[in-house]
Parts: sequence; structure tokens; C-alpha cells
Amino acid sequence: MSYDPDNIFAKILRGEIPSHKVYEDEDTYALMDIMPRADGHVLVIPKTAARNLLDASAAQLAAVIATTQKIAKATMQAYGATGVTVQQFNEDSGGQEIYHLHFHILPRHDGVALRPPGVMADQAVLADLAAQLRAVLDA
Amino acid sequence: MSYDPDNIFAKILRGEIPSHKVYEDEDTYALMDIMPRADGHVLVIPKTAARNLLDASAAQLAAVIATTQKIAKATMQAYGATGVTVQQFNEDSGGQEIYHLHFHILPRHDGVALRPPGVMADQAVLADLAAQLRAVLDA
Repeated sequence: MSYDPDNIFAKILRGEIPSHKVYEDEDTYALMDIMPRADGHVLVIPKTAARNLLDASAAQLAAVIATTQKIAKATMQAYGATGVTVQQFNEDSGGQEIYHLHFHILPRHDGVALRPPGVMADQAVLADLAAQLRAVLDA
Repeated sequence: MSYDPDNIFAKILRGEIPSHKVYEDEDTYALMDIMPRADGHVLVIPKTAARNLLDASAAQLAAVIATTQKIAKATMQAYGATGVTVQQFNEDSGGQEIYHLHFHILPRHDGVALRPPGVMADQAVLADLAAQLRAVLDA
């Protein structure tokens, strides 16, 4: 299947809809998930078109995994996390909902289970969590 | 924390314990998970030491994600999967059990949930699934 340029992340990258940005470089962009399964749940996406892992280029994957690592480390520091779970979903049956490649970064704490999917977060809480993470990334 | 060279994957890489290998290149190794959460559940690991995503080098990550992509595509073909879920766990609270960097590749089919963790698979079944995947990778 071909890439749909009207997916939500493409619109965010074009500045057509807002996001809680935490990081950006030449090739990648990182933002807060608005339906976080853990506090500080971040998504990392490439700036160029890729539906998912199955059609991404080697350069896109290398850039996205490098940023995923950078954000994972920063969440440990920013949120005092004791672990990080990374998830990446491909196609409907693989759990994918938005068809622009993205890696989920879930900061974890001992004994705290992931929240169920689909629950929208408060925007002020997301803004505050994003600010905490940017402070670490910009330090 | 430092890398423990006596973890299970290090022993597999040294040939000290067996595995159902599905793929190998200069930098990475892929094997069947012996406690699969989906039929055809594969793990991709670097051949060099890394505890997890948090201490891996850029080169290790680029190599491991490239092989993860290669295996994910091959599982779609080998098993007729309609999707793929990728997971990667860091530290105890992040879900990590073996402290050598590994990516989980879970072939998915519409309407089929993941199995609960911790259930050992039949070795003959794993051998057969590995052979099916190698046939696609070697084609």
C-alpha cells in the first residue's frame, strides 16, 4: 500500500495541526503521545514518508532508532524512570493506527503497569511533561 | 550497570548453547524465541556486547534495526502474517529479562491476540517455523 500524505503525523510535520514537540533534528521529530500508556509516552517519527517498518529505508530506520535511543535515555533522567519499553506496530493486525512510521517510547517505573490504550491525556499535563523532557534534552 | 558476558544470548553467540537460528550476518544474529507470544516470534540481537537500548552504539542499533526489518518482512511472507508487532524492553521495570540487547518480532494475524508470556514452545515446532523462515530469507 502507498503512503497517505494526509495522516496525522504528516499534518503535524507540515505544521497543519499542533503537537507537544520534545525534539527535532534533520531527519526525525519526537512528540508526546496524546493517548499515553505511561506518563512521558513519546513517539519518534521520521520527517520523510514511510508507512511503517516494512517500507522504511535503511537511512530512515537508522535515524529513527538513534533518536529513539536519545529520547529513551532522556526519559530515564527527566521522569526518574527505572526502565523503558519500546513498541513499534505495523499494519492493522500488528496494532498500527497511524500510517506514518513511529516508535513508541514508554518510560516505566517498578510495579507500574501500562495504562489501557485510547485514553486522551490532559493537554496541560502533556505540555508539562514535554517541558520536563526538553529541559533534559537541551541541557 | 556493566554487560554480563554469561547471559543466555552471549552463550548462544559463543555456541555454548543451541538456538533455532534463522539468520546471521556480520553484525547481527536472529533466532526463534523459545517462549513465543506468537507463532514465528523471532529475536534479533547484535553479535557484540550491549545490555540494551540504553548503552548500545549507533552502529549496533543501525545493524539490529536493519535486520529487524529484514526479518519482519520475511515473517509476513513465510507465515502469511498480516502485520508485525515489534517490542524492545529495557531494564527490569521495562520488561527486560535477558541483558543482551534484543528486538522482538511478533508476526500477527487479524483477530489473533498475543499469547501470555512465559510458555515454552515445543522444540520441533520451533525447528519447523525456523526452517520456513530460513527458506524465505535464503530465497
